[in-house]
Formats: sequence, structure tokens, C-alpha cells
Amino acid sequence: MAELATGKSRHLVVFQPSGQRGYIAEGTCLLDAARELGVGLETICGRMRTCGKCKVRVEDGQFDRYGITSSSSHLSTVSAKEREHLGGQLSAGYRLACAARVFGGVVVFVPEESRAVKQVVCKTATERVINLQPAVRKLYVELQPPGLQDATADWERLARAMREVFELDHLSIDHRALLDLSPALRRGHWRATVTLWRNREVIRVEPGLVDRAAGLAVDVGTTTVAGYLCDLKTGALLSTEAIMNPQVAYGEDVISRITYALRHDDGLAKLNRAIVEGLDAIIKGATEQVGLAWDDVLEIVVVGNTAMHHLLMNLNPEHLGKVPFVPTVHHPLDIKARDLGLRAHPSANVHFMPLEAGFVGADNVAVLIAEQPYNQDAITLIVDIGTNGELVLGNREKLISSSCATGPALEGAHIGFGMRAAPGAIERVRIDLESLEPRLRVIGNDIWSDELDPAEIRARGICGSGIVEAVAEMFRTGIIDRTGRFVKGRTHPRLRTGDDGPEYVVAWASETSIGKDIAVSIKDVRAIQLAKAAMYAGAKTMMRRLGVKRVDRVVLAGAFGNNIDKERAMLLGLFPDCELENVRAVGNAAGDGARIALLDVDKREEADRVARQVEYVELTAEPDFEREFIEATHLPHMRDPFPNLTAWLAREGCAAVCQFKGDS
Amino acid sequence: MAELATGKSRHLVVFQPSGQRGYIAEGTCLLDAARELGVGLETICGRMRTCGKCKVRVEDGQFDRYGITSSSSHLSTVSAKEREHLGGQLSAGYRLACAARVFGGVVVFVPEESRAVKQVVCKTATERVINLQPAVRKLYVELQPPGLQDATADWERLARAMREVFELDHLSIDHRALLDLSPALRRGHWRATVTLWRNREVIRVEPGLVDRAAGLAVDVGTTTVAGYLCDLKTGALLSTEAIMNPQVAYGEDVISRITYALRHDDGLAKLNRAIVEGLDAIIKGATEQVGLAWDDVLEIVVVGNTAMHHLLMNLNPEHLGKVPFVPTVHHPLDIKARDLGLRAHPSANVHFMPLEAGFVGADNVAVLIAEQPYNQDAITLIVDIGTNGELVLGNREKLISSSCATGPALEGAHIGFGMRAAPGAIERVRIDLESLEPRLRVIGNDIWSDELDPAEIRARGICGSGIVEAVAEMFRTGIIDRTGRFVKGRTHPRLRTGDDGPEYVVAWASETSIGKDIAVSIKDVRAIQLAKAAMYAGAKTMMRRLGVKRVDRVVLAGAFGNNIDKERAMLLGLFPDCELENVRAVGNAAGDGARIALLDVDKREEADRVARQVEYVELTAEPDFEREFIEATHLPHMRDPFPNLTAWLAREGCAAVCQFKGDS
Repeated sequence: MAELATGKSRHLVVFQPSGQRGYIAEGTCLLDAARELGVGLETICGRMRTCGKCKVRVEDGQFDRYGITSSSSHLSTVSAKEREHLGGQLSAGYRLACAARVFGGVVVFVPEESRAVKQVVCKTATERVINLQPAVRKLYVELQPPGLQDATADWERLARAMREVFELDHLSIDHRALLDLSPALRRGHWRATVTLWRNREVIRVEPGLVDRAAGLAVDVGTTTVAGYLCDLKTGALLSTEAIMNPQVAYGEDVISRITYALRHDDGLAKLNRAIVEGLDAIIKGATEQVGLAWDDVLEIVVVGNTAMHHLLMNLNPEHLGKVPFVPTVHHPLDIKARDLGLRAHPSANVHFMPLEAGFVGADNVAVLIAEQPYNQDAITLIVDIGTNGELVLGNREKLISSSCATGPALEGAHIGFGMRAAPGAIERVRIDLESLEPRLRVIGNDIWSDELDPAEIRARGICGSGIVEAVAEMFRTGIIDRTGRFVKGRTHPRLRTGDDGPEYVVAWASETSIGKDIAVSIKDVRAIQLAKAAMYAGAKTMMRRLGVKRVDRVVLAGAFGNNIDKERAMLLGLFPDCELENVRAVGNAAGDGARIALLDVDKREEADRVARQVEYVELTAEPDFEREFIEATHLPHMRDPFPNLTAWLAREGCAAVCQFKGDS
Repeated sequence: MAELATGKSRHLVVFQPSGQRGYIAEGTCLLDAARELGVGLETICGRMRTCGKCKVRVEDGQFDRYGITSSSSHLSTVSAKEREHLGGQLSAGYRLACAARVFGGVVVFVPEESRAVKQVVCKTATERVINLQPAVRKLYVELQPPGLQDATADWERLARAMREVFELDHLSIDHRALLDLSPALRRGHWRATVTLWRNREVIRVEPGLVDRAAGLAVDVGTTTVAGYLCDLKTGALLSTEAIMNPQVAYGEDVISRITYALRHDDGLAKLNRAIVEGLDAIIKGATEQVGLAWDDVLEIVVVGNTAMHHLLMNLNPEHLGKVPFVPTVHHPLDIKARDLGLRAHPSANVHFMPLEAGFVGADNVAVLIAEQPYNQDAITLIVDIGTNGELVLGNREKLISSSCATGPALEGAHIGFGMRAAPGAIERVRIDLESLEPRLRVIGNDIWSDELDPAEIRARGICGSGIVEAVAEMFRTGIIDRTGRFVKGRTHPRLRTGDDGPEYVVAWASETSIGKDIAVSIKDVRAIQLAKAAMYAGAKTMMRRLGVKRVDRVVLAGAFGNNIDKERAMLLGLFPDCELENVRAVGNAAGDGARIALLDVDKREEADRVARQVEYVELTAEPDFEREFIEATHLPHMRDPFPNLTAWLAREGCAAVCQFKGDS
């Protein structure tokens, strides 16, 4: 026990598991001791002993190295409030840090749930560890009611309490939140929960203690829009909701939508209205799934390509479609939900993640912060598959990006029996090398067709991952050759000529819910070839630009990225050869990145920094792109070697069937 | 000429009339020299030589005390751009400070129009000198067009130029301004005028050079709403527009409107809608008068009592009407015009000046910054006359304020022939002591009735200042006595009994445009007595509270304040006795204060400071208020001495007629 000049005894306090320690004045509560020592402890009520969030466990026993004999006897006695909050946990040594005061040496353990910055695991296709520090947090305050002696206005009364209890100064309050302030304070008898954005703006005031806080991460794709409703207190994914982008009514791809906006007086207004209504539907669907209301959404993080970003902001996309492809803004922006016309909490801010350049947008930035190639030595190729394909290549030294108009085929659109990834969609296809009979997996059943009798959900179409696998399997089994042509002379009931030319039947009418045979035609194969050739040629062009001959890692991202089979994706020639164990399908990494930015505010600054560092390559301006594109229409490629693929095909026993210049 | 270690010659540059001087590196332009020496020079184009705003006059001749022989020969030769902008002024020694470079000692004179902070005289009832430094300013920039080598987004390109040319960093852009950004830059061929709010937020971007900038100051009174459209570049008053507050449909005074809001589900919505539509009408009227559009209004400063302030913000006024009279917010707030539903530029900010306490609102704060009693030794009583009367008393040591419900009589409402101050309203009245015949002044004629034959505009009613003068004159000439009763036994054609009891006819039907005699009845006299008694009793109660026996100065403010006759106001007993030469009628000082805050951003901080310093006195809680009120119903008062008034009456020759306990 150290005695300082103040005359007050000071005692050693040790916080585990961090080991932070120091001498603390006698009588100080553990919460203040933690603050003094820089230990982040959770609390939403300041130190009013109301929220019970600052639980710590007192480590009892001999701590010889600290000279501490018994921690629990060195703390103030257990208060009634602690009994109320802790109940049975009291006997396990738990205390409230705001109540327990120091009267001797103490060792305390801070459990995970009491840490101010918690780490959460985001369970997506890959598990990602996130520091939970959202922009939006809720704080509970109790105010002195006004009287004739203190007729301070409600806002100034609240601001004073926020300053005194949470040391938060210079707060502002949004106009819409101000409208609810006076009724909320009175309904809650001067106890209220304040929702704070970025520690500076009050965006909601609710009566009493309301712990629940939800935010939405949205990936606005050209074809698919996906929303992830997250609990901002725990980081948990509460619900997901996906819809077809309602803008498809005005054009299948980015360029056709920009053209629509240009050619029609109300074109921009219609496109904007469509996506705003789409997001409203996502907010409604995602909140209703978990019993929340639309105005419980307190922040939204949006990612999307440059055109989607501009159209949602209601910005004229005219110049995005013309050389030199200049966006209106590329830095991150926070815009009030009400200014965008979105039906979320009206004071909620919508955070638009930064754009890179050209069509490489905020979705790609989100992929970057999810995958962090800028923190690695390995040369990583990120292939983000969508109607607009985006590529990133590089490592901590340099990152370059590009985009290519792959078209919607890889998302299952513009395909004879194409549909989006929804129940009834064939998402996986295997064709037997000998019998040419397929095995399918249909979304909703979750097991292969031959393990299931009868199928619970019948097929009604084929989605992006399904068509990619089907074409790859048709190539592997020799139904089509490396140029994509149906091999002549093969006879089989499933091989026939349909309206669109030769086709392979993946499901007979009797197995479907649509009463029609589902087939993959030569036309579908051609669409897939063009799309994959664009991706491959882009990757090759970038590798030349960066001066690398091969890539160390390939990351396959995209709405269907977690369902894609990496061997078949490589067989199709979606990307250059790479060791198969270093190819990873990560699902919707853009959506993951949006969730990360929603839950960890620091990642927003990181995103802005990274977005500015990535160098954009305009593929169409590169000299060899057109030649690369033509060569890449072959399966997997006209001339590039694929040693890793060859090895796999040999293991699969189909090297002889699937002929290509694999090891020239 | 000093030579420094840099090796570059430095020359003495003197700026007149401030006399700021220093040694400046050879080759520096005068604009940079001014910056270096802290001389504020106007420029809207930075140093692009486009705006011609940074004109200075070179002072030639011998300046022995500076050792300068000939300024003009010590500057770079006159450039083509200067020739273009200065024309004939060249021969008078004018140069553009951004073009003229220093090659020797120079004395330059900065003319008023080139000073960054100009002083303007605000011509209201009293002349007020204002430092012209509005929150909104326009800056002209020329940008490098984008190209494949520099495809920076439009906003970041603009922000870069603002940083380079004006040294403005960390700018943000409002979402609505962002929507216009890309088209504006291209329409202006990359030359644009940027409207900046408080040096931090871009609120408008226009193609080319658009110098014009307008803002609106609004005084939202319970009965009258007045708007002042100001040129933010020159400080000039462009137009004024006044309307009856449309909320009068829901209640004549503050309390009845609060009650309306409480008792009807859509009460608040209706009251808010009414005042928003009222302000829209003012914006439309004021801008159309001078050929501007409603969206040329780039900032609005609003003052009003607490209830008007809350209702315009759409805040529930419930608690304003109940002890302890707590407002929702009292600090100043800036809210987007679009969030209030106002039809001004959608990115314009509406600045609500701070409230004091109770019903003493932002209008009173505006009066304070216009009159600045806090900068004076003299004890000043400010009487702000309106439906809700407000009083301030004190000096630099202490200021106290209070409010009293005077009712609308002093604004001409609830008076038999009352009307607002509009053409046709009798605004001044004199009654001849002998003949009891009146002389009138009607708004629109601007001279007295007997100097005009026939009257151009005929009377159709009587406004606030008219009724005050009429009652005072009736008392002065012995038509009514000190209790307000019509003196018995006097006979005159103008003295008769009407529907409301005894009355005095101020205008015969033939002289009016309404075909009816206009008279002042006993009922009108009583209404005025009650209103003036509330003001007087308030002032007396405050004097006791502050511990002063008399006041040094009286300031009469209010919508009709500039037309009020101070002798007659004192004779009525609107305020305690004071030397008449220290009584000043200043007109709508609240409106003046709003204009001052619109034109000089520093005054907003001053207002916030002062609003917090003024101590509010709740009159109804003061022990003697009721007795004071009853005593003050007499003309001018039941027992208080009025030595200054007595002297004046003696000079006027009517001391004998107008009997009161003037010098007890």
C-alpha cells in the first residue's frame, strides 16, 4: 500500500486478463480505477448502478507476486443494487465495478461481456473477428426533474447529464430527435436512453432503459440487393433479407441503367425511387423477422458499385458512363435516412462507404476491408463476381483494381432457366463421368438430390453457382469441348436439340415444379464463356500491369461466392491457375465488409485510406485486353497452362476426357 | 530594404488606413502581403484575377517617415487582367492586389469596398453599425477539368481547389448541394461559384460567377411576422414583407395557442403548418419584390418568443405553458430549411437565436444584441411591446428580464376599429386642447390629415401606435380621466354613446374608406389600460428586484416602436418616469437584432452568451405584482410621481386639464 502526498492511501489494483495495474486512491470504485488505468469497461448508465453491465469477477486467493492476500475483503461490502443485478453470480465473486470500492489490493477479472470493446466473430462463409465498436451506441441516463429553481431546458439538462456522467461534451441533437425529446423525458419520469452517433450527435431519445440497438448493412448489387440486420450491442446477425434489385426493370446492367437515366427526363427519379423502395422492403422484411419496427434501424452502411452508389444518393450518373469516368464524390459520406427518403429511423445516418475509381465502388472497398490483402505479403487476386465484376490484385506493397462488365449470366440472369439464388434454384450440379446423369442440389433442400426421395422442394430454375457448375461439369465430362461446342456424335437421352440449339437436360419435367425440362443450352454456355472470359482477361491484364507471373492466393467473392466450387470455377477458367488449397470462396465479402464497417467504426477510416491507395486500371485502355479476352473464351483458356488443374483432373480420373492445353 | 537570410530582398509595405506594415519578400503580390500582415482584403476568386474585388489604391509621392519615394514604380507593371478590371481607375492609381507584385517600398490604401470585413450602417429606426461578416459567403473557383490522368471525383476536385486557393480545409457538402454539383461544374465549364456556410459546409454550387447572395431575417411575433431580405454581400436591406401570423386563427395569444396544440390531436401540426406557410409567403413576397427566386434565400435567422420558436420547430409547446415553464431547448440551433418544410434553398440553414427563459425568447435576445445594454453603465429599461410584452432591465453588471401577457391591444387587435399597421391605418392622433378636433396621420399618406386635401388614402381603422396615441391624447385633453372614465358633462359632436358605451369619434364616416365613423370607445380604453398596466407593473417589479429607484434610459421597441410618440407613451403610463431625452423609440429592435445576427456571425455567439447571463424573473411569482398591476391601471399611475412628465405637460399648456398625482 502506497501512501502519497495527498494523505489518502492508494492500493494496487490489477485487471485481468490484460494485466493492466496501478495504485488507486482508497475509496475509488473499480469503474473509475479501470478508467484511470485505461481498461475499457462496458457501462451504459455511467455509474448509476442501473444497467448492471460493468460486472467484474474478483479473483480471490494469494497473489504473492502482487503482495495481495484476499481481494474480496479489500472491497466495500456488497450493496443492495449489486444483489439485485448479480443474484447468484455474487457467490461466484462477481461485483459491479461502479459499486465496489477499493480499500486494499485487489485482483479483478474482466469477463468478455464487460469489455468496452468486445471482439465478436462474424459467422459468414469465413469466420471474421471484429472489434465491436459501432458508431451508434445507447446510453442510459437519469436526470434531476426541473423545478422553479432549475428551469433549464430539456436538451441542455440532458446534455449536462451526458457531460457529467459520460464525460461527453459538445453533443448536438438532430432536429427529428429533438421533436421526441420532451415527451420521452417525461414519459420515462426523467430516465431515458439516449442513442448517440459517433459520440457527437444524439439521434434518438427513448423513455426508460431500452438496450436494443439495431443497424443494417446493405450490399446494393446491380442484380441482387442483400441486407444484414445486426445487433449493435452484441454484433450478432439478427436477420438477412435479399431481393432482386428493382432497377432491373430499367436495365439489366450498369450501362443500360445509366443510359436510361440519360434518355428519360424522369429516368434518374425512377431509378432512385426503385432502389429506395427496394431498401425499404429490405428494412421492413429484416426487422419484421425479429419483431423490430422499421424505425428501430439506427444506422445503415451501404456498399455498392459506383453507379448503384450514385443512384441511391440520387446523383446523376451521366459522367460515370463517359471517359474519363468521373464520379461526383468518392469519399465516404453520411446522409440522413430521411434525406434519402428511406424508411428507417429518420435521424439515422446512412454511411456510404468510399468509392475507388471508375465502376470499382464501395462494394470493392468493403471486400478489401473484409479480406485485407493490404496486410499480407502473398499476392492475392480477389475476384468479386457480379453483374459488374471487380478485381483486385496485389499485397501490402501495392494494390490495383479494375472492373469488367461481365453481364448478369454469372448471377443466373440471361440464362434459359436462370433465376436468382432462392428456394427452388439448382445451386450445385455434378455429372457422372460414365452415365452423364446429373446429381443436383436445390436451394431449400440443402442435400443432394439422390439422397432425398422425394425432393422436398422441386427445382424451378438454375442460379449463378448452378450454371457455373453445370457448364464446368459439362466440360469435365466431355459434353462440351474447350471452345464450348457440344461434342458431336455423343448420344444420350439428356443430350438433344432444343429451341436454342444443342442442350443438356439437368432435370426432367417430372422432377421440377414448373412442369418443364430444365436444360443448359449452347446459348447459356456462350453467355457463361463471355462472362468468365472478361474476368479472366481482366486478371491477366492486371497481372501484367503489376509485373507478376502467378498469384499466391485467389479469393472468390460474390453473392453466390460461398456456394461456388473452386475446382469447377478454375476448370471454367474464371481465374488463372493457382494452388487449389490457396483458392478460397468467401461468399458475399462485400456484404461482410459492410457489416464490419457497421460494427467497427475504425474500419471506416481504414476503408477510406485503402480506397485512396488502390490504383485503378481501366481495362479497355490496356493494349492487350481484347486479345486476352478472346483467348480467355476457351475453357479454361486458349493457351495458358493450368498445372494445378491438371493435377486435380488426373486425381478425378477425367484428364483424358477433359482435353485442354493444360500444361503446354 | 531589409535583406534576410533567405537571400531574397524584402521591402517595407504599408497598408492604409490601418497603418499595418511589415517587410515583405520581393515578388510577393499585395494580396499575399496583406495576408502576411493580417490585413483583411476582399477576394472571391482567391488570386485568379477573375473577380476584381481586391482593388487597392497605390499612394504615390514622398513618404519620408517610411523612407519610400514612389510606390507605383516599386510594383510590377500593370497586367492585361488589371487593365480589364480597372479601366479608368488605373489612372487614379488603382491596382489588383492579387496581380501587383512588390519590388520596393510601397504604401497602399485599402478602400472600404475592398476590406474583408466591411462596416455597414443598418438603416432602421436608429442607425446601427454592423460588421459585415455573414455566415454565408460566395467564392468563385476555376478548376482543372478532369482527364484520364486525373479522374478525381467532382467533389474532391472542388475541395482541393478550395484548399489550394482559399486555404479552406475540412469542408463538407450538403446532400442537396451535392445533387447539383456535377451538372453545375460542367455547365460552367469548370468555373463555379461556391456558397459556403460558416466556412465549413458547401450549400450551393452554381455555374460561373454568381455574386448575388441573399439571406432573410425573420421576427415571428404572436400577431405580426416580419421578414427582412438582406444582401449578404453589401448588408443592404433588399425588401421587407410583413404578414399577420396565420396562427391567429387558432388563438390570439401564446397561451391560447399552446392550449390549442394540447387539446387537438393535430393541433401542433396545424399551428406548425400555419407558421411555415406564413414564412413561405414572406420568402415569396420578399424575393419577388427584388426579382429573386425563393431558393436564392441562402440563410434564415429566426427570432421569436419561446412559443413561436417551438411551434416553428414543430416542438410540442405543452410544457411551456406549465410551471416551471421549461422549454425543450434554449441554445441556438441551425436546422436545414428543408427539415422545417420551408421553401427557401433546401440546403439553407435556419438559425434559431437562443431563448432566455419562460416566454422571454429569441426576440428579446435579438433586442439585446441590437441595443447592447450589457455594454453600458446606464440602467436601461427595454420595453418590447407585443402581444407578449417583454422587459429587460439592467446594465453591464446585471441584466434581468421578464415577460407579461399584455394581449394584442397594443398591436391594434381586440380594439373596436383595430387593424394592423398597413395602409389605411390611423397611426398617429393629435387632439386639439380647445376644440377637441383631431388631426390624424394615416399609413400611406405620410403627412398629417390637415395638410392633405383630399386625403390620398382614407382611414379604414386604427393600428397599435394610433390607439396608444388616441388614448393618451384623450387623457391629455381631459376627455377621459386618470381612471380611464369618460369625463361627465363634456359635450361635443365627437363625444357620444355607441354600442360599447361612451366613445370619441376620431374620423367621420365621410373621411374613411369604410363608410363608418371610426371611434375609440370606453372598451378600447380599458383594453389599453390593462395592457399598459401589465408592462408598467412588470417594470416596477423588476426595478425593485434589481434594487433601483429610477431608470436612466428607456428603450421602446416593438413592431410599431418607431412610430410611437414617447411623450404620449409616458403619459399613458407604459413605463416609469424617465428624462424624456433618454427615452428612445427604436422600432422593431427584435427584427434589427435578427438582421444583425444574419449579417455578423460573431453576434450569434454574443447572443448565446448574453441569453445565458440574463436572469429571468417570473412576474406572477413576485409578491407585489398584483398590487402593482392594479395601481398601474390608472393613467399614468395611481401613486407614482412623474416629474419629467409634469414638466412636459406644463410646457404643452395642459397641466391643468390633465390632472394626476404627478408630483406627490
